[in-house]
Amino acid sequence: MALNLDKNTNVRMGMDQKSVGLVETKTHTFAKPPNELLLECGRKLGPITIAYETYGKLNDKKSNTILILHALSGDAHAAGYHSYDEEKAGWWDIMIGPGKAFDTNKYFVICSNILGGCKGTTGPMSINPESQKPFGMSFPMITVSDMVNVQKELIDHLGIKKVLCLSGGSLGGMQALQWTISYPDWVEAVIPIATTSRLSAQSLAFNAVGRNAIISDPDWNNGEYFPGKTPAQGLAIARMIGHITYLSPESMHDKFGRRLQEKEQYSYDFVTDFQVESYLHYQGIQFVERFDANTYLYFTKAMDYFDLAGKFGSLERAFEKIKSKYLVISFTSDWLFPAYQSREIVRALIKNGVDVSLCEIKTPYGHDAFLLENEQLTRLISSFLSNLKLKEK
Amino acid sequence: MALNLDKNTNVRMGMDQKSVGLVETKTHTFAKPPNELLLECGRKLGPITIAYETYGKLNDKKSNTILILHALSGDAHAAGYHSYDEEKAGWWDIMIGPGKAFDTNKYFVICSNILGGCKGTTGPMSINPESQKPFGMSFPMITVSDMVNVQKELIDHLGIKKVLCLSGGSLGGMQALQWTISYPDWVEAVIPIATTSRLSAQSLAFNAVGRNAIISDPDWNNGEYFPGKTPAQGLAIARMIGHITYLSPESMHDKFGRRLQEKEQYSYDFVTDFQVESYLHYQGIQFVERFDANTYLYFTKAMDYFDLAGKFGSLERAFEKIKSKYLVISFTSDWLFPAYQSREIVRALIKNGVDVSLCEIKTPYGHDAFLLENEQLTRLISSFLSNLKLKEK
Repeated sequence: MALNLDKNTNVRMGMDQKSVGLVETKTHTFAKPPNELLLECGRKLGPITIAYETYGKLNDKKSNTILILHALSGDAHAAGYHSYDEEKAGWWDIMIGPGKAFDTNKYFVICSNILGGCKGTTGPMSINPESQKPFGMSFPMITVSDMVNVQKELIDHLGIKKVLCLSGGSLGGMQALQWTISYPDWVEAVIPIATTSRLSAQSLAFNAVGRNAIISDPDWNNGEYFPGKTPAQGLAIARMIGHITYLSPESMHDKFGRRLQEKEQYSYDFVTDFQVESYLHYQGIQFVERFDANTYLYFTKAMDYFDLAGKFGSLERAFEKIKSKYLVISFTSDWLFPAYQSREIVRALIKNGVDVSLCEIKTPYGHDAFLLENEQLTRLISSFLSNLKLKEK
Repeated sequence: MALNLDKNTNVRMGMDQKSVGLVETKTHTFAKPPNELLLECGRKLGPITIAYETYGKLNDKKSNTILILHALSGDAHAAGYHSYDEEKAGWWDIMIGPGKAFDTNKYFVICSNILGGCKGTTGPMSINPESQKPFGMSFPMITVSDMVNVQKELIDHLGIKKVLCLSGGSLGGMQALQWTISYPDWVEAVIPIATTSRLSAQSLAFNAVGRNAIISDPDWNNGEYFPGKTPAQGLAIARMIGHITYLSPESMHDKFGRRLQEKEQYSYDFVTDFQVESYLHYQGIQFVERFDANTYLYFTKAMDYFDLAGKFGSLERAFEKIKSKYLVISFTSDWLFPAYQSREIVRALIKNGVDVSLCEIKTPYGHDAFLLENEQLTRLISSFLSNLKLKEK
């Protein structure tokens, strides 16, 4: 799948020797009526289309699969480029590629858009077969379990009996945990990063305010957007709130401090004065162009509902049937899903005799650190994976 | 001013022996053209009306004045009741009254609504004499310095030559700091609480998102609200964001955890599931009924602009002319204006030889702790004040 780039025609891509190159998103459709998927909320959904990308080659034994699970704002496009013109590589390109942490010379890497998403997988923007209009709020409530069940369908479809390793950050990490609970025999190893087994009251609160911003945007119109209009203002505000929680106070200070935006003095007006305002504004605008507000509502609700201790009585009991090897990674400056939440996970795993390692990476970059270049993260993952490989021989 | 309550007619008020009783808001108008007040932004404003309340009696020497400075959402009504029917006492009633921390048996306590406010003091809701319409966004940008200058006019008007003590939390604390810089000879002592000499990048960011929510509410209409309509949704969202920052993660956990609101199971719908959502929603709705969105814009901007080190070159230089005695109080769990910011203030005061005490109160209640019943806070203030009294004799 990797492309031999002509450096004369495309210098930017040609310069990255570790890129998987040009990639494309594929789809698989299943759960066609009358075989709809039963969701955790009790409703049925089908047909379901799942959008996914793959990088590297599946080996003959079909034993080298790594399943990447994306977070709130991610999609199936985790690495490489969709075209020569694409400005940015996939969202986890720093980690996926030949010679990278998830080394596509060795592994067959899959990433799929989550159920409820807006990038090819069935979600609230999809056409509801009953009404022949977009689902909007008639889309059923989905949970992390449902997301994982849909991914399992994809794995079955690709003929893979066992995934070598699952990994993802944040909501992706929740899916990783859920996989080892829902399908203990299908997962050799798992690397949940910057995640939690349940949201704190504060995280619930931030999600609630974000949803509120979307829902109170008149253009939201109860999820049925007016022609040519989307609740852009509401979604932008939700994204801005999110962004503050993804960065640490230290990294915000280092990145922006109180520096003014293209001026030397206060404007004494309601235009943008500070760089941090300008940054957030830009993040909000950008997000609106690529993301659907209803998906934001459904994904944050799925995060809110994820509560392993609540569901199983205790975290220890939630992990009773786990057979996968665990590498849990957290970041010291993550205040959205703080490191103590990863330690809770590890303690409960240990009580169940799970083979688990914990690494708290010291970094000022907060929750979003898993998306940034991080040598330590790369080394940890590479070495964890290569140990798995050795055992496999 | 304290009322002898008839317990037969008003049990609720009669039960509180420490209430200042029935109080009323007074006003003073000054800066009438052509003597408008020159603001820091360079524009002039006048006439200016300042709304204020007083509790206790000014002594013959006019030496027992305590000036209370309110925060973002406060007003002049700091203690007692406006009527028998008023459900809630003034915003700092727990601290102001006979026998309380700011003891109205001893002190003459004044609280005024800040310049730019919406509770009687001239602000964006006031009528612009030029247009005969509400100022809206034609109201000049105001700063903490301007707020203090207006308070100084009130003190002069009341014939007070020196204030015994100034105190306030958050934005109120900023005003307290500014008073000792602007009018070093007028302030005997000062108690800034849960405050900062400048906002961090993260706090700037939260303010920016709150303003964005207001400004993108179509009912805001560039500050000229449509008849009978206010940007209620935007202001509610701004308030919800604020509220998250006023509480600590611990106190949110203790208060709400992941408890559901009047249900035992998830609703699998977009109604309110968690108590914390319901609480924030309620806070948002309540606020909208009593507060003006444009004032919210102006106050948060004044907080953003407050930067003593930026203005004077360093915090040490900002405090060069200070003659007041200082008691700086911070809360360990305050993450909006963290305790380290109070320590910065104290270090710079010490370098200037100011008589300063610092107290970091260990509490889980976050930034809002200054508004809550707190025995330690009460004791600290009482004892600080009584020492001042002794010196005065």
